[in-house]
Amino acid sequence: MSLLAVGSIAFDSIRTPYGEEEEILGGSATFFSVTASWFTSVSVVAVVGEDFGEQHFRVFRERSIDTRGLEQVSGRTFRWKGEYTGDMNQAHTLDTQLNVFESFVPKIPAAYLDTQFLFLGNIVPTLQLNVRRALPKLRASALDTMNYWIQGMPDELAKVLATVEILLINEGEARMLSKHHNLKKAAESIQKLGPRVVVIKRGEHGATLFSPESIFTVPAFPLDEVHDPTGAGDTFAGGFMGHLARSGDLSDANLRRGAVYGAVMGSFAVEEFGLGRLLRLTPGEIESRYREIKNMTHFDA
Amino acid sequence: MSLLAVGSIAFDSIRTPYGEEEEILGGSATFFSVTASWFTSVSVVAVVGEDFGEQHFRVFRERSIDTRGLEQVSGRTFRWKGEYTGDMNQAHTLDTQLNVFESFVPKIPAAYLDTQFLFLGNIVPTLQLNVRRALPKLRASALDTMNYWIQGMPDELAKVLATVEILLINEGEARMLSKHHNLKKAAESIQKLGPRVVVIKRGEHGATLFSPESIFTVPAFPLDEVHDPTGAGDTFAGGFMGHLARSGDLSDANLRRGAVYGAVMGSFAVEEFGLGRLLRLTPGEIESRYREIKNMTHFDA
Repeated sequence: MSLLAVGSIAFDSIRTPYGEEEEILGGSATFFSVTASWFTSVSVVAVVGEDFGEQHFRVFRERSIDTRGLEQVSGRTFRWKGEYTGDMNQAHTLDTQLNVFESFVPKIPAAYLDTQFLFLGNIVPTLQLNVRRALPKLRASALDTMNYWIQGMPDELAKVLATVEILLINEGEARMLSKHHNLKKAAESIQKLGPRVVVIKRGEHGATLFSPESIFTVPAFPLDEVHDPTGAGDTFAGGFMGHLARSGDLSDANLRRGAVYGAVMGSFAVEEFGLGRLLRLTPGEIESRYREIKNMTHFDA
Repeated sequence: MSLLAVGSIAFDSIRTPYGEEEEILGGSATFFSVTASWFTSVSVVAVVGEDFGEQHFRVFRERSIDTRGLEQVSGRTFRWKGEYTGDMNQAHTLDTQLNVFESFVPKIPAAYLDTQFLFLGNIVPTLQLNVRRALPKLRASALDTMNYWIQGMPDELAKVLATVEILLINEGEARMLSKHHNLKKAAESIQKLGPRVVVIKRGEHGATLFSPESIFTVPAFPLDEVHDPTGAGDTFAGGFMGHLARSGDLSDANLRRGAVYGAVMGSFAVEEFGLGRLLRLTPGEIESRYREIKNMTHFDA
């Protein structure tokens, strides 16, 4: 079924212990939609500048991503520069240039108004709310957010949280949002704010899915080397929502499968800088890693 | 089958955000043997002082733990004082009084010489090696160690590591011992030092079992509140080795079951101060939590 992503498109400059890349294609809408395109048909609503070239549009088109909602305006594309050191759990932002993203107002093409599955990438909560309200036929909407909005716009964030079914959030931000250190209490407290499903992303420790029916944990796939964690969270979301939209199934068992696909896709994302590995996948590789996670979590009852 | 624990017995004084206890029974041999006693018959080799009273001996006897190797000498029992703050992942030691533990030399009663399963709690590596060598009929021995020995006695630790089948170690110490940050690389590098099975304990994130055949992860059981993390590692070891000794089965599938029992027992340990919860268990509660971990990790292939 149709899946729409709203978020950022950026040129990322990234340094990690494994190397350095300048102005490579990134952003939440990019990582999400490229990932989800392995599961279902995806549309993207985002803004880029005049410096967004044919080679960048081609990345989306080659993954059959519908870019009618990709607005190109005068000015420069959003740029982010960051560095990962030591345990690579945390990006250190060196520079942010919002550029055309600063005045981004998502415009939903008429063709998308029957969208059933929505991903609201990490943008200002008031815009997330407007998008959510513009789509009357949604079966499931998932939201991502960050410390900046949790601290800076708590009331606006609360409004959009009350309208979504799923929150994808990292461990530290779940604690900040809920004011609970204990993740079980944090999730239960967030569920009271709106989202019946809370997925807490725990980086190298995997993810925990809190649904109204149960708690489910999936480990991160163990890699020999993590080259670049940028986009891992949006990639997780892309695997999760991509599987839900593909199957149209929101049962507890299928939410679990979605979380495993999220972990699978996240593990590919971090193996190389930027989108590299995510563009070079095969469906067989995705299924094979899914089975490997099954093998590493199975034990006899 | 017979399971022998060698380690410390201590009086612990503990402060956590949930309260404070003075001089309660603890130590690696205590947590391990009380836990393993829920699975199989256990013997303990340790030293206590004159202040170790009838009420303390009774704790072991009531769990049917064989205390013929529990040596009482003149002087005071080992004392440890520690505090947990904030995220409670790390104990801050406030005071250590080795007392009779300082000159501890484990003496293995003749009746234990046919021991098949051994746990070498965290004591000086040279003593661990002597115990290992004194037991010719071992089918599996498991070792615990800590940063103090990794940094202070690396050569002696290497010698005993070369003789054991299983190393139980926490995340930070695995990194310190292997000089690898990546846990997969850390485990593979430790396996080359001797132990074919490496269990990396990751606190609230669970544990990962590296065997020659596979990698297995088990999450920590999600609790609403962790009251006192003291002894959680030795309790994990008690569930793991207790299950292995009970079944006599060292297959990959059974090592996995053991790791789940380790996680189950660890989750009980931290619910209350000291041994409290571990003494009040029922076999039904243990099996029930085992099934709950099965439920929270299961997904369809």
